[in-house]
Amino acid sequence: MHRTVERMLRTNVERPMATPDALASCIQACLVCAQACTACADACIAERTPGELEHCIRINLDCADICTTTARVLTRQVKPDLGLVTSLLELCASACESCAIECGRHGHTYLHAHVCASICHETLDQCRRLIPLTAEAARAHH
Amino acid sequence: MHRTVERMLRTNVERPMATPDALASCIQACLVCAQACTACADACIAERTPGELEHCIRINLDCADICTTTARVLTRQVKPDLGLVTSLLELCASACESCAIECGRHGHTYLHAHVCASICHETLDQCRRLIPLTAEAARAHH
Amino acid sequence: MHRTVERMLRTNVERPMATPDALASCIQACLVCAQACTACADACIAERTPGELEHCIRINLDCADICTTTARVLTRQVKPDLGLVTSLLELCASACESCAIECGRHGHTYLHAHVCASICHETLDQCRRLIPLTAEAARAHH
Amino acid sequence: MHRTVERMLRTNVERPMATPDALASCIQACLVCAQACTACADACIAERTPGELEHCIRINLDCADICTTTARVLTRQVKPDLGLVTSLLELCASACESCAIECGRHGHTYLHAHVCASICHETLDQCRRLIPLTAEAARAHH
Repeated sequence: MHRTVERMLRTNVERPMATPDALASCIQACLVCAQACTACADACIAERTPGELEHCIRINLDCADICTTTARVLTRQVKPDLGLVTSLLELCASACESCAIECGRHGHTYLHAHVCASICHETLDQCRRLIPLTAEAARAHH
Repeated sequence: MHRTVERMLRTNVERPMATPDALASCIQACLVCAQACTACADACIAERTPGELEHCIRINLDCADICTTTARVLTRQVKPDLGLVTSLLELCASACESCAIECGRHGHTYLHAHVCASICHETLDQCRRLIPLTAEAARAHH
Repeated sequence: MHRTVERMLRTNVERPMATPDALASCIQACLVCAQACTACADACIAERTPGELEHCIRINLDCADICTTTARVLTRQVKPDLGLVTSLLELCASACESCAIECGRHGHTYLHAHVCASICHETLDQCRRLIPLTAEAARAHH
Repeated sequence: MHRTVERMLRTNVERPMATPDALASCIQACLVCAQACTACADACIAERTPGELEHCIRINLDCADICTTTARVLTRQVKPDLGLVTSLLELCASACESCAIECGRHGHTYLHAHVCASICHETLDQCRRLIPLTAEAARAHH
């Protein structure tokens, strides 16, 4: 998938917001994370443990929505508002961190939460790697 | 629409994150804004003015995605991460402000941009009104 | 909200896919329904009744996603694939019907399910009213 | 990515709607396609060729939304409405086919349209492979 994402970035006449490799890695991570969080929320509901997994379901649903939006915004290269993109990356990192912590709490009991926590950590890392690049581009643009 | 949104909030056994009226107003504003930004991007494309409206199209698409996600997150009352919700409201306010400014620049020429700018301003206001409430709830919760 | 949606449709240089009033009513219904289904899924999770509301939560989440996509597609007037738009309206009607039936089954016990069922019925009606218009436009276009 | 998607399916206590391999392939294809269509719409806007790429931009935006929703619905295994899932797969196949045809028309001129058309074809294939499985499960369930 990374190769396809990067290839689409390179065929755009607009210069990408950051290096195509870093951008493609973050986009891919966000898409994988949105899928994993949607799956983890569903798997939590299937466990039928009223109360115990409520916060886990909720933060998974929020994190899935935020990661989906982040992947879309990062995919667009036409005239970005780089300050807004940087803020969105920071928000996405926070969502992944909260979700990683909550899923991590249930990781010993539920394998889906364990896998999801590890994907959230990876996405948090990818967002954090991209933030200095978009923040630098935002400064250069002003 | 506001009445329906507020009614759904009041039927939830979870206490809402903020007063139902303020929450419903912000959710409604985000949904209206997401629709208006999607429509404005489409109407900009239909103008066939290469270059001139590029940033307007792009920020409209970003703002639509961010407002859709914000409406969803605000709609969920089960065990929220109130710090994350507050950050999302701040991001949504920034997106609406950027979009209001850009659409405002084209508002004298294109009526859709004029209408969209005014809807973005209203949504910015609604987010700003809700931020102190969720921030206060986040502090109270810790 | 209807007025704003219709106003944005009228400011587009593209002719709308159907009469602005019918289109605006269906777009609004889809947005209200997406919000209500997201709220009902959340309220069902908060009830802590393992098993009983599983299908209700799931069909609410699916219906919310399908209504959100339908509202977006209906909002765009630039060169639509009218056959695809008609199929999407049929799918959205099916999703609303399934969700109305399932929420209706729980409507005597849970007020959120009762309200949500009635909103799904209204959206089903709006989709069904629009289908002959987009289907006719699809035929005229060929 | 396929491995992660399949792993999440296997950790769910609910039996998946179809074989985990076929389901994971289709989910992955939908996510890749949603990203490629969002990227192609953006790259089309960047070409600044008023009129020529209007339908391409529009069908890309529609296809991206439909693929995102399809990936989400396929990701959930809890008590699906298998008839609705099958209809959604048929709609997604139609959207990918329309988008593949339109991008294919511009593939000789624009590399992003060429790459996007090929990804839409692959996703169309994956949807068509999954349809008999969910349709069969829908029949078995009744």
